[in-house]
Amino acid sequence: MQKFWRSSLLISLMLILTGFLILGCNQDSSPTPPTTATIPEGELDPAVWGKAYPDQYASYQKQKEETKGNSKYGGSLPESHLKESPAQVKLFAGYPFSEDYNEERGHVWALEDVTGTLRVGPKTISSCWNCKSPNVKPLVDKMGDSFWSTPFNDLKDQIKHPISCANCHDQKTMALTITSVPLLDALKTRGIDPANFSRQEMRTMVCAQCHVEYYFKPDNKKVTFPWNYGLKMDDAEKLYTEISFKDWDHKESQAPMLKAQHPDYELFSTGVHAANGVACADCHMPYVKQGQSKISSHHLQSPLNSVSQSCQTCHKQSEEYLRNQVIGTQDTVFKAKVALETALTDAINAITTASKNPAAKADMMNESRTLHRQAQWRWDYVSAENSMGWHSPKEALRILGEGLDLARQAQLKANLGVGAAVEGSSDPNAGKTPGSGTAVDAAGPGTAPKQ
Amino acid sequence: MQKFWRSSLLISLMLILTGFLILGCNQDSSPTPPTTATIPEGELDPAVWGKAYPDQYASYQKQKEETKGNSKYGGSLPESHLKESPAQVKLFAGYPFSEDYNEERGHVWALEDVTGTLRVGPKTISSCWNCKSPNVKPLVDKMGDSFWSTPFNDLKDQIKHPISCANCHDQKTMALTITSVPLLDALKTRGIDPANFSRQEMRTMVCAQCHVEYYFKPDNKKVTFPWNYGLKMDDAEKLYTEISFKDWDHKESQAPMLKAQHPDYELFSTGVHAANGVACADCHMPYVKQGQSKISSHHLQSPLNSVSQSCQTCHKQSEEYLRNQVIGTQDTVFKAKVALETALTDAINAITTASKNPAAKADMMNESRTLHRQAQWRWDYVSAENSMGWHSPKEALRILGEGLDLARQAQLKANLGVGAAVEGSSDPNAGKTPGSGTAVDAAGPGTAPKQ
Repeated sequence: MQKFWRSSLLISLMLILTGFLILGCNQDSSPTPPTTATIPEGELDPAVWGKAYPDQYASYQKQKEETKGNSKYGGSLPESHLKESPAQVKLFAGYPFSEDYNEERGHVWALEDVTGTLRVGPKTISSCWNCKSPNVKPLVDKMGDSFWSTPFNDLKDQIKHPISCANCHDQKTMALTITSVPLLDALKTRGIDPANFSRQEMRTMVCAQCHVEYYFKPDNKKVTFPWNYGLKMDDAEKLYTEISFKDWDHKESQAPMLKAQHPDYELFSTGVHAANGVACADCHMPYVKQGQSKISSHHLQSPLNSVSQSCQTCHKQSEEYLRNQVIGTQDTVFKAKVALETALTDAINAITTASKNPAAKADMMNESRTLHRQAQWRWDYVSAENSMGWHSPKEALRILGEGLDLARQAQLKANLGVGAAVEGSSDPNAGKTPGSGTAVDAAGPGTAPKQ
Repeated sequence: MQKFWRSSLLISLMLILTGFLILGCNQDSSPTPPTTATIPEGELDPAVWGKAYPDQYASYQKQKEETKGNSKYGGSLPESHLKESPAQVKLFAGYPFSEDYNEERGHVWALEDVTGTLRVGPKTISSCWNCKSPNVKPLVDKMGDSFWSTPFNDLKDQIKHPISCANCHDQKTMALTITSVPLLDALKTRGIDPANFSRQEMRTMVCAQCHVEYYFKPDNKKVTFPWNYGLKMDDAEKLYTEISFKDWDHKESQAPMLKAQHPDYELFSTGVHAANGVACADCHMPYVKQGQSKISSHHLQSPLNSVSQSCQTCHKQSEEYLRNQVIGTQDTVFKAKVALETALTDAINAITTASKNPAAKADMMNESRTLHRQAQWRWDYVSAENSMGWHSPKEALRILGEGLDLARQAQLKANLGVGAAVEGSSDPNAGKTPGSGTAVDAAGPGTAPKQ
């Protein structure tokens, strides 16, 4: 009898144990079966893809959240940069970014956000649809380069889905794929065949489709990456100078300005993570449990919200240590960025004041405007980039240091342009009598505004 | 018979193998026996210690080498900083560093170098013996604080050995020990009991005896570390401002200047290696084979000469990758440092020119001198530090960026001081009429030159 009870107990224990092994700690006992669904040819609707890949889709849908999360800088709350930093209203004077400039929300909001911003108006062209929807590629395939300058509103009805599955995945194989025409062009310019990318490289390059600096090509307004000379800030500037490109004339200083977009990929490329073969997706799309599956997260957010999955796979320090490393570095970059905003404000004021002086020497005013352009390009390169310098802290601080030097030189040059005390300066033009030109003559080098 | 040969062959092979195991690949078959020698009480001569520890001593003697080694910046060749960068002659105008300023050689040369430099003259005091010899501690113990202001030459005969064993080791136990009176004082100021340091911490703190920023205390000329508010550049500056400290008056700008020493430990403390518990000795004194022993290298040189032992114990990348990371970062810091030298030169010229103008407004000239002091302090903090920023690249670039901003502001303020065009500037004093003071009144805040 005792033996019977002992056997029963043993069997019961084994059954309980087996149950736990099958169910895990999860109450839901039905794991998602591997999909057998196929995506219909040409289907771009993420909801349809989502039926075949419900876990990835559920993860993607989390992008709807609007929250700072664990970020100190960034996050997915559409906060106004202009309210946070009123200096930016002055820095962007004469350009739509001075009127409406918010922090981005998730990809899922791309269409609401691009159609809702005050920066888009009746003159906006379809280049602004690029990177907002998987519908762009088929339209460019159909329309050719006439797509880019087509009025934005003319194509509104044909742009149906926000950035989603088909922007990065082959619908048959689910392999990562590049659908961005501008990236394909830029790679061609650099002599790179995308077919040779490894999967790990593709886990960066699908992001580089959009998270880059770009300009509208003057002749056909095509979205173009300034990569001819390389990926660095200086390389893009070299090209822009060579083709006399400008985005707008600054309303106060009259300088021919450049607006940086979001050179996340380029800045990242200069950093230590890239040098060690880390991909964007390693940090921003870590492996997570979704429903019953382990998938690459498609939430696409700050890695500060997933330190254990994003960072601790390589870095064995504590979450607190890692978070402090990131925030501490960002604090340093932020402080330098704000110092540069002050220097740029001073430069703009000095140029504006000097411009009103009829004795202002045109060549020196032009030089001060060029310095303003160069300094603000450096500020914007770091400011518009989405990591507050974290993607490559040394490079971000290098760029901001140069910007500080250039902005103060713009201010000095403007003062000198109206005859400030200059004897002994290293500037060879210093102290000379004003030339025949006046400030009014001092047109900048730019010719081709992009918006 | 065949069996006999087979056995003989096997035995021979075993003997050969055993021989290899005993001898290793080394021809010398007599490993150094563990020492049983003791160091006589109060013995400071490294040659005597060397008899008990011949391998460590042989390694220490390698410091005699004068070579760049694998360094691009630094090394142990006594190259002139002034020849490499003539701008420094101007930056140090009025201070002995403008006449003689060479790269350091190894510790073993400390006495030749301190007695040979043109910076030492009849007015030099014994504070300059600090960190040059193990003879200092017993002398301070005997003389008390009268040691520091005693004429340098008066103690020449009692300073017999260069920096060596007794500076860092207890003669009985060989444990690491702090013999620097200034470090013991500084730790006390910060409420730190050195008895609580772990061995790993001591592997940094023995270096922090000397590789630090310091000043001569105004009352008794005692070597003192400016750590009251913390270890950062800004903390030292805060103290120097509070006590109106200056090292000298700049000969051209008349600014009350600070000379940075070699804040290697402080800069390192802000970096990622320190944050991860890496000690100075982990990189600069890696475990190496010396003779028959495995010892901590006492060569004390750039880790670029021992990448496999210094870096690859933690970092699994190639030597080439690691070297490029270091040199590439140093190149970036160097470029920012040179840009700041240019900005400082411009600032000095602007202040000097403005000073000659009788209309120069005294308060603005004073402000420009303060800005010169602050900017050059930042430059020197990175320039005099011994790693070309590598000990903490982000911090070095942060400091240089601030320096660029401040140097250009010094230049601007000097120009404004003689009435440059200023309307619209963010400077509240801009454009106002010159005050009653003149540039001649514009004495700096400093009171206590240290040499």
